[in-house]
Amino acid sequence: MDAAKTLYTAERLAAVRDATAAAGMDALVITPGAELRYLTGYDAHASERLTALLVPANGPATLIVPRLERPLAASSPLPGTGASMVDFGDGTDPYALLASLLDEHADGPRRVIGAAERMWAAHWHGIEGAIPGASLAMAGDVLSPLRMIKSAAEIAELARAAEAIDRVHARMGEWLRPGRTEREVAADISAAIIAEGHTAVSFAIVAAGPNGASPHHHVSDHVIERGQPVVVDIGGTVDTGYGSDCTRTYCVGQPPADFTEYYGALHAAHRAGVDAVRPGVTAASVDAATRAVLTDAGYGEYFTHRTGHGIGLDGHEAPYIVDGDDTVLVPGMAFSIEPGVYIPGRHGARIEDIVVCTDTGVTRLDTLPTEVTIL
Amino acid sequence: MDAAKTLYTAERLAAVRDATAAAGMDALVITPGAELRYLTGYDAHASERLTALLVPANGPATLIVPRLERPLAASSPLPGTGASMVDFGDGTDPYALLASLLDEHADGPRRVIGAAERMWAAHWHGIEGAIPGASLAMAGDVLSPLRMIKSAAEIAELARAAEAIDRVHARMGEWLRPGRTEREVAADISAAIIAEGHTAVSFAIVAAGPNGASPHHHVSDHVIERGQPVVVDIGGTVDTGYGSDCTRTYCVGQPPADFTEYYGALHAAHRAGVDAVRPGVTAASVDAATRAVLTDAGYGEYFTHRTGHGIGLDGHEAPYIVDGDDTVLVPGMAFSIEPGVYIPGRHGARIEDIVVCTDTGVTRLDTLPTEVTIL
Repeated sequence: MDAAKTLYTAERLAAVRDATAAAGMDALVITPGAELRYLTGYDAHASERLTALLVPANGPATLIVPRLERPLAASSPLPGTGASMVDFGDGTDPYALLASLLDEHADGPRRVIGAAERMWAAHWHGIEGAIPGASLAMAGDVLSPLRMIKSAAEIAELARAAEAIDRVHARMGEWLRPGRTEREVAADISAAIIAEGHTAVSFAIVAAGPNGASPHHHVSDHVIERGQPVVVDIGGTVDTGYGSDCTRTYCVGQPPADFTEYYGALHAAHRAGVDAVRPGVTAASVDAATRAVLTDAGYGEYFTHRTGHGIGLDGHEAPYIVDGDDTVLVPGMAFSIEPGVYIPGRHGARIEDIVVCTDTGVTRLDTLPTEVTIL
Repeated sequence: MDAAKTLYTAERLAAVRDATAAAGMDALVITPGAELRYLTGYDAHASERLTALLVPANGPATLIVPRLERPLAASSPLPGTGASMVDFGDGTDPYALLASLLDEHADGPRRVIGAAERMWAAHWHGIEGAIPGASLAMAGDVLSPLRMIKSAAEIAELARAAEAIDRVHARMGEWLRPGRTEREVAADISAAIIAEGHTAVSFAIVAAGPNGASPHHHVSDHVIERGQPVVVDIGGTVDTGYGSDCTRTYCVGQPPADFTEYYGALHAAHRAGVDAVRPGVTAASVDAATRAVLTDAGYGEYFTHRTGHGIGLDGHEAPYIVDGDDTVLVPGMAFSIEPGVYIPGRHGARIEDIVVCTDTGVTRLDTLPTEVTIL
């Protein structure tokens, strides 16, 4: 893909090597996931076979790859970043290979290893065994400050994903009807997530009535009833790996009076959260601005989660918009604003947009109206 | 689901606790994945929020769960196993909570912690920070010997999945045609994986011509040509989480002569591998029996991976049918037999069935013919 040239570069890898040294780590070991994709463009799958990009603080980066997956890695953007590859066969020890590469390419005692956030414990256990005295640090301490601030090319990918998911929400009336199950509606939504421009479905939450009071409910065989509020939280990834994530709450027919009451407060809280975003404020202050509206309206105890999370190659990544997080917002940060109200046993509502901190304030990537949609 | 009663039981959890003590571990900490599902039936998703089942060697099991996901955990089979639950809010420290639970429920120095195979390094890092002196062991050393030997209820689930995937292969002629791309064919297959009885698609590899020489190729926009061999390796999971995994190689029209020649050897190798399965032999011996046929026919160097892998709640799990693995087969073990031949730049072929070691020998769960299918 053409985007690869601007997204994954030798310069990025060099900057990460410098930051690794500055952080006092001897090397990063990056297994499959968003961090590997960020560094190399290689969208590898995690498995019991070790795939790992070794980034010594003082040497060239090398991908250790199972022999049978070498063609996949070779056809990814990885070679364009200057990283080399070394493969291993089934039944041989990739951890010993990693240790010998570290011996070859890095100076120093090589004890502090920055591991990928999602590295499997089994792989870390293998590395510990092959490198006596290895101590675990988090590669995220190096990578997250870089990943948090999106380039113009990355913002364009997030915007492309957001436009696609907004098109799916705009079609909700085709699928959401009384008498259908959450699962049936979610299946239609999943097909539309692909049809509207994503290459993969990340999630399709359809939570009707009491299920809407469970913030991470997915789907069930619950039959949607007339007048039941329905929380629809959906997302996918486009071909470059960047994701969408947008929630709207619907109702087929008129919603119950108590729902209408708290939805008004929720709507104001969402707006307050978006409006609080600008360079120089903390993530925690955006959470506080959002939460204050619901607390003042008497719904604070029903807003049971943080206000938002960053998004990029991971669906959830820094910055987290949560109490206690003093990360200062800077232009290029992209994250969700997604307050919710959950009344156990009754129903719930959530409004979620992806926003980007700009030089002067904020841009919403999801642009649909945030009023409850009566179908 | 009714299967929950026979699949996830208090007895299983008690057996694991005893095995944890016997292995010299002070506790298991099981994050989302097949191991958590095996122990509790809870099909949780892995995230930056810690979800973890703490199984002290000397105390009751407790699930630590993010507050917003407590309803999901509560509606899973977990409560039926006798495990309790404790939740935490966003912005609070779940690792400190885990440490205090361990203080409360376990005796001894609580230093050796058996972590889930796929626990994120970020979570282990958090645990290390909260429990000074904690050392990492693998929960798999306790769980894998138990998980490897499937109960009759588990075999029934694997058979149900295998029958569903066989029905998809039987319909391949509906989709596989010259002029279509691998991606188009894979999309049709993915829909059929669901339609034929799975609840999720695990993978749909369609590898035509030269792509067939890359064992883990997924799909591409390559247009399938007449006379090109096509490797189709597909799998899904049924509602209880047990998986299918079956590969056949197809050709639209007559395949090239060199393909036909090595396919004969591959067919014989697959049969030899299946026939080598019986109680008392090692996993390595089954790999050797399979590999010998291809080596004797002059294709040994083109069979670049192990012969197979176990299957259950994970798509790849022990036992691995690989050189050097001296695991002795016993009745109830379920795994793939999947030799392949890969001619770089030309084409490739693979035949894969899931088989079960029985009291007297072997049962194939996938029962379609293994000859190349000319469409």
